[in-house]
Amino acid sequence: MALVEQVLDGDRLALARLLTLVENDDPQGLATLDALYPHTGNAHIIGLTGGTGTGKSTLVNQLARYVRQQGIPGNGGAARQIRIAVVAVDPTSPFSGGAILGDRIRMRDLAGDPNVFIRSMATRGALGGLALRTRPVVQTLDAAGYDWVLVETVGAGQSEVEVARTAHTTIVVDAPGLGDEVQAIKAGILETADVLVLNKADLPGADRAATALRTSLRLGPSDSEAGNGGWQVPILMTVATEGNGIAEVVEAISRHRTHLQASGEWVQRVRLRVERELRELLAQTLLASLLDRQPEGAFAEIVNQVEERKLSPRAAVAQLTQQARA
Amino acid sequence: MALVEQVLDGDRLALARLLTLVENDDPQGLATLDALYPHTGNAHIIGLTGGTGTGKSTLVNQLARYVRQQGIPGNGGAARQIRIAVVAVDPTSPFSGGAILGDRIRMRDLAGDPNVFIRSMATRGALGGLALRTRPVVQTLDAAGYDWVLVETVGAGQSEVEVARTAHTTIVVDAPGLGDEVQAIKAGILETADVLVLNKADLPGADRAATALRTSLRLGPSDSEAGNGGWQVPILMTVATEGNGIAEVVEAISRHRTHLQASGEWVQRVRLRVERELRELLAQTLLASLLDRQPEGAFAEIVNQVEERKLSPRAAVAQLTQQARA
Repeated sequence: MALVEQVLDGDRLALARLLTLVENDDPQGLATLDALYPHTGNAHIIGLTGGTGTGKSTLVNQLARYVRQQGIPGNGGAARQIRIAVVAVDPTSPFSGGAILGDRIRMRDLAGDPNVFIRSMATRGALGGLALRTRPVVQTLDAAGYDWVLVETVGAGQSEVEVARTAHTTIVVDAPGLGDEVQAIKAGILETADVLVLNKADLPGADRAATALRTSLRLGPSDSEAGNGGWQVPILMTVATEGNGIAEVVEAISRHRTHLQASGEWVQRVRLRVERELRELLAQTLLASLLDRQPEGAFAEIVNQVEERKLSPRAAVAQLTQQARA
Repeated sequence: MALVEQVLDGDRLALARLLTLVENDDPQGLATLDALYPHTGNAHIIGLTGGTGTGKSTLVNQLARYVRQQGIPGNGGAARQIRIAVVAVDPTSPFSGGAILGDRIRMRDLAGDPNVFIRSMATRGALGGLALRTRPVVQTLDAAGYDWVLVETVGAGQSEVEVARTAHTTIVVDAPGLGDEVQAIKAGILETADVLVLNKADLPGADRAATALRTSLRLGPSDSEAGNGGWQVPILMTVATEGNGIAEVVEAISRHRTHLQASGEWVQRVRLRVERELRELLAQTLLASLLDRQPEGAFAEIVNQVEERKLSPRAAVAQLTQQARA
């Protein structure tokens, strides 16, 4: 299987081709991913989420630039050079592929670096959840030897929370002055955060916003309840456009990994992630298989009956699953 | 089944109780919903989505107030009195129930109106997609005789798009000056919109924002491609805090229903919705049933093997489904 070796050898074109195959559920692509699976498990998967207007993408670009130039804190304090992949998930776009998001253009200075890989991923109209679609892409990049796989999602809806949960470390980005509703969102999204970043910290209201974040954090579940093994969520101030505060974010991410591994939570998170992935894949597979086994037109006929309110959705499902068992 | 009759009779306490049962997948609640199912299909389901800071909730409150005071355009131009239900979906909160969202307090003047029903719905941590959770709630309100069921979601992620797709009419709310990234989001989210509202139209930059929206709309798929049967998406300017432009939004919603029914698209959308609902319910049911039939510890052992990279997720799923068939 040539593609497997090419990807393990660091062939970027082969990697890009494999990602496209994997994203399209191509059988060869999925078989290649199966073969690569034993090579996964080394990457530090970092989810980064936040509302519109927080300057999230600029922050991601600066993080990538910083870790390529400075490395990350290694054992004994010496910097460690790493390879970084960025997956920019755009739930509103139907186009996947290279670095196509408008603001990717800012990463031009990283474009020639063989140890940076940027991939835009569109999930609009995709079947299954966001996590179901991004996971194989992340696994491919993990197998390809990227030390950090940073998954950036737009917005703060449930699907973003879902993606955050598939990561080892979740960064939530906020900015001052984003309107009243943000407060309400924060209250929930905060609990998924391992690292909080207040970007655009040079804007008026930054101190007030940081205080609000600190208060919200205190109002959230205490450390013991949240089961995060004593991790104190840091609130970091950045001005991504100027590169200010980036070093501190990189340091916090590295420190969080050390904490997860020391507390045993790393293993726990991986286990939860694997279990969730299996459940989702199973559900999709079982559904496809049941529908395949229906006589032609049978499912459409049941849809008709529900549409005409002769059958409730639950009764229809009971009928279909009993048939399958008989 | 007393609860069925109570809900059909307009008993609000019974309705609130049923909604709680339905949301918790309580067997009695689901059986009641089954019995109510023949009474569904009359409501005009309206999805309303938009980013943070757009003043979405204020707009919803004003819409509810307006339709209760003025009615909606009926046949022959005479106003028609309607009953309206609002479901405020908060994907970041774990609390469901009454009108608990902070800004619901603005609806106090509607609280005594027996023909308005407001329900906050939390979906954080809920199993299954957002649509899977909101659908039974919307169906219950439909059966209870609400003419308009307005589903308001926070944010603009994939789950919000999903909820939008379960509606007959989707309203996307925007506001001037929400930062660079909004532009990128608009490009995708716009295509789900049947009605575009630019709220906070008294802010500086409103005209420029409206022009940008108009341009984005023109750049989107043409009417024939999008299959919307010739509907021209209106761009409406509102100042929800002042009640300005609300009448025009109500008029556009009513006009869209007339258009959907005349073009045959109403039936098409309902069919698509029913089919999607059945697929999702089936997948969840099949998964639960397969896991139930596993010997104790068998699934955990497979999770272990995937965790240790001895088995790929796809191979694990193949193993589990083959066992089930044998």
